[in-house]
Amino acid sequence: MTAPLPADEVAAGVTTWLAAFGEALAAGDSAAAAALFTEDCFWRDLVAFTWNIKTLEGRAEISAMLDATLPWVQPGGWAITSGGEPASAGGVTEAWIGFETAAGRGRGHLRLRGGLCWTLLTTLDELKGHEEHRGPSRPKGVGHRADPARTTWLEDREQEASALGFTEQPYVLIVGGGQAGIGLGARLRQLRVPTIIIDKHSHPGDQWRSRYKSLCLHDPVWYDHMPYLKFPEHWPVFSPKDKIADWLESYTKIMELNYWADTEATSAAYDDQAGTWTAHVERDGEPLVLRPAQLVLATGMSGRPNLPGFPGMDVFRGDQHHSSAHPGPGRYRGQRCVVIGSNNSAFDICGALWEHGADVTMVQRSSTHIVRSATLMDIGLGALYSEEAVASGMTTDKADLVFASIPYRIMHLFQIPLYDQMRERDREFYDRLEAAGFDHDWGDDGSGLFMKYLRRGSGYYIDVGAADLVANGDVALARGQVDHLTEDAVVLEDGTQLPADLVVYATGYQSMNGWAAELISQEVADQVGKCWGLGSDTTKDPGPWEGEQRNMWKPTQQEALWFHGGNLHQSRHYSLYLALQLKARQVGLPTPVYGLQEVHHLR
Amino acid sequence: MTAPLPADEVAAGVTTWLAAFGEALAAGDSAAAAALFTEDCFWRDLVAFTWNIKTLEGRAEISAMLDATLPWVQPGGWAITSGGEPASAGGVTEAWIGFETAAGRGRGHLRLRGGLCWTLLTTLDELKGHEEHRGPSRPKGVGHRADPARTTWLEDREQEASALGFTEQPYVLIVGGGQAGIGLGARLRQLRVPTIIIDKHSHPGDQWRSRYKSLCLHDPVWYDHMPYLKFPEHWPVFSPKDKIADWLESYTKIMELNYWADTEATSAAYDDQAGTWTAHVERDGEPLVLRPAQLVLATGMSGRPNLPGFPGMDVFRGDQHHSSAHPGPGRYRGQRCVVIGSNNSAFDICGALWEHGADVTMVQRSSTHIVRSATLMDIGLGALYSEEAVASGMTTDKADLVFASIPYRIMHLFQIPLYDQMRERDREFYDRLEAAGFDHDWGDDGSGLFMKYLRRGSGYYIDVGAADLVANGDVALARGQVDHLTEDAVVLEDGTQLPADLVVYATGYQSMNGWAAELISQEVADQVGKCWGLGSDTTKDPGPWEGEQRNMWKPTQQEALWFHGGNLHQSRHYSLYLALQLKARQVGLPTPVYGLQEVHHLR
Repeated sequence: MTAPLPADEVAAGVTTWLAAFGEALAAGDSAAAAALFTEDCFWRDLVAFTWNIKTLEGRAEISAMLDATLPWVQPGGWAITSGGEPASAGGVTEAWIGFETAAGRGRGHLRLRGGLCWTLLTTLDELKGHEEHRGPSRPKGVGHRADPARTTWLEDREQEASALGFTEQPYVLIVGGGQAGIGLGARLRQLRVPTIIIDKHSHPGDQWRSRYKSLCLHDPVWYDHMPYLKFPEHWPVFSPKDKIADWLESYTKIMELNYWADTEATSAAYDDQAGTWTAHVERDGEPLVLRPAQLVLATGMSGRPNLPGFPGMDVFRGDQHHSSAHPGPGRYRGQRCVVIGSNNSAFDICGALWEHGADVTMVQRSSTHIVRSATLMDIGLGALYSEEAVASGMTTDKADLVFASIPYRIMHLFQIPLYDQMRERDREFYDRLEAAGFDHDWGDDGSGLFMKYLRRGSGYYIDVGAADLVANGDVALARGQVDHLTEDAVVLEDGTQLPADLVVYATGYQSMNGWAAELISQEVADQVGKCWGLGSDTTKDPGPWEGEQRNMWKPTQQEALWFHGGNLHQSRHYSLYLALQLKARQVGLPTPVYGLQEVHHLR
Repeated sequence: MTAPLPADEVAAGVTTWLAAFGEALAAGDSAAAAALFTEDCFWRDLVAFTWNIKTLEGRAEISAMLDATLPWVQPGGWAITSGGEPASAGGVTEAWIGFETAAGRGRGHLRLRGGLCWTLLTTLDELKGHEEHRGPSRPKGVGHRADPARTTWLEDREQEASALGFTEQPYVLIVGGGQAGIGLGARLRQLRVPTIIIDKHSHPGDQWRSRYKSLCLHDPVWYDHMPYLKFPEHWPVFSPKDKIADWLESYTKIMELNYWADTEATSAAYDDQAGTWTAHVERDGEPLVLRPAQLVLATGMSGRPNLPGFPGMDVFRGDQHHSSAHPGPGRYRGQRCVVIGSNNSAFDICGALWEHGADVTMVQRSSTHIVRSATLMDIGLGALYSEEAVASGMTTDKADLVFASIPYRIMHLFQIPLYDQMRERDREFYDRLEAAGFDHDWGDDGSGLFMKYLRRGSGYYIDVGAADLVANGDVALARGQVDHLTEDAVVLEDGTQLPADLVVYATGYQSMNGWAAELISQEVADQVGKCWGLGSDTTKDPGPWEGEQRNMWKPTQQEALWFHGGNLHQSRHYSLYLALQLKARQVGLPTPVYGLQEVHHLR
């Protein structure tokens, strides 16, 4: 143990490093800059240097990136930012920093080890000359002099609504008006980018309202804020679905979004010559053609439902549907219900069916990772997203940047100890689950839920009560693969017969690029390749290592096609960088993309 | 000039005073407590000691109040609160304090002079055992265990909506669903007080939507926040009416208020025996009887329109209406419009008519006080409610308490220098106005707009551009009293003929107790007397001095009848104290009212 360094010495170390770094960059000396990093360094850049979301690993990658980007990025003004003093612990100094580029202003986070940079996060925060109008630059709302040409706010809004999509084309078309599309739409509005959001439902929030009635968010409120407007302090920890739906509907109105409800996109094609999409949509059943310059698919990080093709599904006489189409438990009281799957949806549906007096069997086909909600909140999120974090001065903004500052390559190393703690805390719970025959795992490398989420987006359940039903036998458990269905039963490969009036296929979703196949073409879907996952070479996330989530919030192999989604935290945070990328293109800034991702997997 | 005291010496002075004060109160020694105040002291209490809104002036009043209240208030725990260190300037030390009573927890503000208390503000912040559930005590939103008896948030809301007013009676009925009623409703919901808000309009916000189209709030955004949910940072400084309407509509939904639109109260009577009101309402035209324990009139600090009875109004052939019924300027292009009055509404309407190409004449019947909006913002509100105040750490909450800490008796002394500054800054503007013949005043004692607002709620215009139209003659100005109307003109006492196709009576409003006359009875309206005003013995605010605004947010001479309203700032702040008074009664806490106001004026 060494004594902690005095604060001014810590700050001086950061200042010295920033000065040397800034000097090397200003001199265009990539090698000198790279030499200021440790051998095992990481530089994660969110749009500031690369016009991409990109992690450089090691000095060579950093040097190469700088060689390519320094001439036009022209970074400078590196400084410690006020509000969070540099701090040192365990030999690592952390600091919040600010900087500028030719195009914009950025914020970042720095970890120094032995005077060299171990991890650097650089993020673009705003574009010069295209700043959002808020706080001191907020609009006045009224011109304080008599003016015969004055129009009112309402007249302006009505004029915009009647023109956009008809006499004027949106710059961005967002397909999908859930929280992701809405949050991005709010950012684009603040950046003055003409945008239309389309959604097949009748109201914002119906994406939630239409789901099974006991659904609540599995992430806690501190993690779930939308951009610009935070939930009030009495908001429940876990938002009930109809309450979050009402919030999103109000949000859409308050943020003045051009939201076309009851609208479906039927096809879209990109015209390379014109640089615009031709998107055919049906609004209230009326066909319309939109010609946006940019197309964002925000139809959910889960793609189309993965409906299995078990033999006998055509002869089964009961109800059967994918979990996404489950109408809720009301009509199944006293009936025999078989739920195929053992992840979040499966547990939620099993729990709700049991509560409504159904006879429920869960079919577990592969191992699942379970964490109790309270434990996940305390150990997994508590430091950044909790009432305690808020009380200690942690803002949502800062928490998002801390989260983003940990390189994906080593993130599992930060996660494993947390899950070791969770295993210890809930040992009795896991013992009971396994005694009941449940096949539980902790991820391929013991790194738990969040890595599973980032790598494959599946394979886990945040327990909000239903795991106990399996542990104590209230919900029957069957393990194995489905062989076929009969008229009234699910039959497993080992011959087990599960009599059923209802079969729910909680069998997950395809990759988001399936939406591109549906809307644009299979060719374009294949061209952009699989969405989500890191290339971690773990279950359902095949290598090679790609370093960032595939295709999310960044340029793809299809010009002007973007994917947006993720949980509320990711949608909130990454919508900023996606919005800045779109704004830069709208105003014709040069946006040379460094390190555009290659495609290794089609789906 | 003396050097400023060191911070610890300042704090020690406050601590010493608080200790002596706490000791005297604990000992029940009212005289000793009163002796800790200066001769010219003020103690303003918001519900903490008096279950009233009450300013005690001088030691004798303080001593008398303590004699009456100490036995059941049992105050203690006097301490400097964290967040704002005591500060000393000009011989006055200011400090933020906290304390407890038998019933609740309070916050306050203290000004010491020469070791004695000059001004003390005590406010009740929450009731013990009935705290709001927010932050660490926020609801969970979901029970994390399977439960067959589980109901969802939506089911609970629907059950509440179908029961309240039918099988269950609200504890509080709020008549009027503008920002005041809605804000109070939000507080009562957080305090778990069953409440119905009724309003004759079809949607929350229609109170604003239905007004003339160029209307924007005259107060800036920092002053206008609703409880619990602040406007986002890009909200315009001056909210356009349709935008604030949308906000209020969303707010009503987000806050889960039981808001009955399209509902009018037709009569109400209090049954002393039963301790309930019998309120007849028509909801969507269907008659219904509600039996609330408490009735709040939140129909606007302006009461019913004051329509004058000029001879000839019956023979005038053009359009004529009170300003509150003005449909906007659209239909009056090229027409001769005479606006009677020279306050806010008159100027707004004149400006909008001129913008739409009407030929406009303003009739000034008495002097008016005008302040330019930007000047008022900078000098009048800047220290507490501005972007700069926010940047310097001033919260809305703190600003409200600072505002409340200045005793009404001496508030004009704080205001006069500000208006002297304004006069200086805009001298050229006032010179032009007066050169145009406009009769301008600064209030009876030069204390300007805010005192006029508190004393009489009229007599001023916050200039958002229309004053220039009068100054430069674009809007014609006529001065004098109206004698009569002819078929096509307004004729003044001096014989001036003002030909008119339209006459707008911007002639103000009656006192709020007119609503009580209309809904309950003239007898009850007379029993509670005039609302608003301080008894300052200035124009339209007759003495004797009453020390607080008449009848607002506090007990009246009619049991269980309350008046709520004011601007957005007052509605926000005082709704807390009104809500706590109602909550205390709902749960049966003893609420002995000290110093119930007497009635000196009927309207």
